[in-house]
Amino acid sequence: MAKNKQLEDLFLDTLKDIYYAEKRILKGLRKLSGGAQSDELRDAFESHRDETQTHIERLERIFEMLERAARGKTCDAILGILEEGDEILEEFEGSDALDAGLVASAQAVEHYEMARYGSLRTWALELGMTEAADLLGQTLEEEKKADALLTELAEKNANRKAA
Amino acid sequence: MAKNKQLEDLFLDTLKDIYYAEKRILKGLRKLSGGAQSDELRDAFESHRDETQTHIERLERIFEMLERAARGKTCDAILGILEEGDEILEEFEGSDALDAGLVASAQAVEHYEMARYGSLRTWALELGMTEAADLLGQTLEEEKKADALLTELAEKNANRKAA
Repeated sequence: MAKNKQLEDLFLDTLKDIYYAEKRILKGLRKLSGGAQSDELRDAFESHRDETQTHIERLERIFEMLERAARGKTCDAILGILEEGDEILEEFEGSDALDAGLVASAQAVEHYEMARYGSLRTWALELGMTEAADLLGQTLEEEKKADALLTELAEKNANRKAA
Repeated sequence: MAKNKQLEDLFLDTLKDIYYAEKRILKGLRKLSGGAQSDELRDAFESHRDETQTHIERLERIFEMLERAARGKTCDAILGILEEGDEILEEFEGSDALDAGLVASAQAVEHYEMARYGSLRTWALELGMTEAADLLGQTLEEEKKADALLTELAEKNANRKAA
């Protein structure tokens, strides 16, 4: 069981990392949404904010399963990713390319989450935490869908401009 | 053409971001590779380092097409992501969960690149830069493959331990 103990540490560590990240993302999405020029993009950000709230609650259930207090751990990665989103908001304010930049920022966020939830789900299975793996898998699928929707919006936007 | 000028700025900005990131990743992969416990994982990191060198050269060709000097721009996102990889290396040194953590770190890197190359490719097409779009698409596919290989290694590792 020593091996599993070490993997459990890694799992808990990463759980704290993504818990912190999700809470930051909740605020970040509000900023992105406030900056969006098209209604469609604003709606996409808003509905993903609701999903993010659910993702946070799922993480809290997993902390409970582990009998641990839900606590975040500073996640430098998400801070850097969101910082780049802020730069786009500032540098491209009033620009016709702003929405394209905001979509890209949000996709960088989604991809970070996909990476983390993918790893967490694999480890939960390895640790025999089937219910946690199921919750993590649900969130993973929602992040993938959110990313695919953003790609769709980006391509639609590009085609509209080319027309 | 004013609209395209703005998108061109965003494209160039993001090109500089990923150019900086790739150069950092080259160093980061050396560290991950040095820390890897299994030969299989070390080989995966090494062969992705060679690919990364090619990705850098492709970016330099695109800078040439734009008649711009190849120059990076500090990318806070990749610095944060690599910083988390360093923490894993320190915290899990000698632990049986180290390789699992290193795979996760590398997948966070891959996902960041996928997000950026996906956006860049869409914008290159929108800007009518077909050759650049093609180069970016090739790199995007290689990043996806590298990520899929890491998922495979993570699952194999998990199954081996469960057996």
